[in-house]
Amino acid sequence: MNIAVIGTGMVGRTLAARLAQLGHDVTIGTRDPEVTLARTEPDAMGAPGFGTWAAENPGIRVAAFGDAARGAELIVNATNGSASIEALRLAGASDRAGTIILDIANPLDFSAGMPPTLFVKDTSSLGEQIQDAFPTARVVKSLNTLNADLMADPGRLPESSTVFVSGDDAEAKQVVTGLLEQFGHADIIDLGDLSTARGTEMLLPVWLRLWGALGTAEFNFKIVR
Amino acid sequence: MNIAVIGTGMVGRTLAARLAQLGHDVTIGTRDPEVTLARTEPDAMGAPGFGTWAAENPGIRVAAFGDAARGAELIVNATNGSASIEALRLAGASDRAGTIILDIANPLDFSAGMPPTLFVKDTSSLGEQIQDAFPTARVVKSLNTLNADLMADPGRLPESSTVFVSGDDAEAKQVVTGLLEQFGHADIIDLGDLSTARGTEMLLPVWLRLWGALGTAEFNFKIVR
Repeated sequence: MNIAVIGTGMVGRTLAARLAQLGHDVTIGTRDPEVTLARTEPDAMGAPGFGTWAAENPGIRVAAFGDAARGAELIVNATNGSASIEALRLAGASDRAGTIILDIANPLDFSAGMPPTLFVKDTSSLGEQIQDAFPTARVVKSLNTLNADLMADPGRLPESSTVFVSGDDAEAKQVVTGLLEQFGHADIIDLGDLSTARGTEMLLPVWLRLWGALGTAEFNFKIVR
Repeated sequence: MNIAVIGTGMVGRTLAARLAQLGHDVTIGTRDPEVTLARTEPDAMGAPGFGTWAAENPGIRVAAFGDAARGAELIVNATNGSASIEALRLAGASDRAGTIILDIANPLDFSAGMPPTLFVKDTSSLGEQIQDAFPTARVVKSLNTLNADLMADPGRLPESSTVFVSGDDAEAKQVVTGLLEQFGHADIIDLGDLSTARGTEMLLPVWLRLWGALGTAEFNFKIVR
């Protein structure tokens, strides 16, 4: 599948690399590719600069938002939640009716320090805000409830765990479910329409506290039933 | 242990019966015992009237809120979230310093229909509101993330799952953890201080959607790590 990954952070990189490994045709979209590729110094978290990473991943194209998304059947929104709608607008997410947006972002608000709160919740969600902003696209919320390494490769955990999908379009959810299965997800629960993304986005507060209590982000929710 | 269970609904009944079965000295608190015990007709959900249930559970005392809580070392708050603070006030939750309040309620707001939203979230929690209202009590939030049958007997599920504790007092959390172990909970994660209850209370929106998607409330979160 022709896939555009919007976002150059660790989440975008991890998913782009995994999708390329699985044989998909992947382009990472960024505001200004030249500027992004010139970053070769590690960032504050010790992650390699994007240019260094890109050199090690020659199979993944890097392009301006709009160029990355132009031919894409599916756009992965791997930006920060607060920047998502602007980035998707620059990517022309409404230019072609029916484009699937796999929204893996969370509406985290860091303005009052740690832990972050949610800038939308309970009566709406980031997923729904994106759908409202791009009404001809088909938004599917998924993968926002676990860290990037586990999104891409849930087999890192000692046993099977659960991921969720929310969306208004059954076919788009089927396409996303197919990708999740390729990643190795074996327990995928379709929660229903996109408003159910309120539920998974509101998992973030307990995810953040679990991260603190467990001292690792290598965990995931499993729905035992 | 001398335990008062505040709340006569299915959650209060289920926990009271389980605690009594485990050998604890249990009193259910209600506003007016005479009125409550006179209810013998099944309710709208088909649950037996409280009087009928009480007659079948003669080992459990029924008393006015204040009488139930008077000698209790631990009060279980099994009321509706919107009624919790008033019921605990009637129970004299601040009368004796150090009383442990095991708060299993959720701040559900049904005023706009189904699914309910949360009347407090993200920047505070019901657990914290109760602690603020009764500063000499020691509030521990737990068991608010699964249904009553599974709170009391997690062995109903085919495999082990997780419960959480949040609270500011280490000794109170230890007492609650001991009760949880008696119920059969094997994976108990201490999330930290009471503010971490924001995380577990915000699990309710996804719990409610899972209930809808799975068609059963017999499920629980397990933290795979």
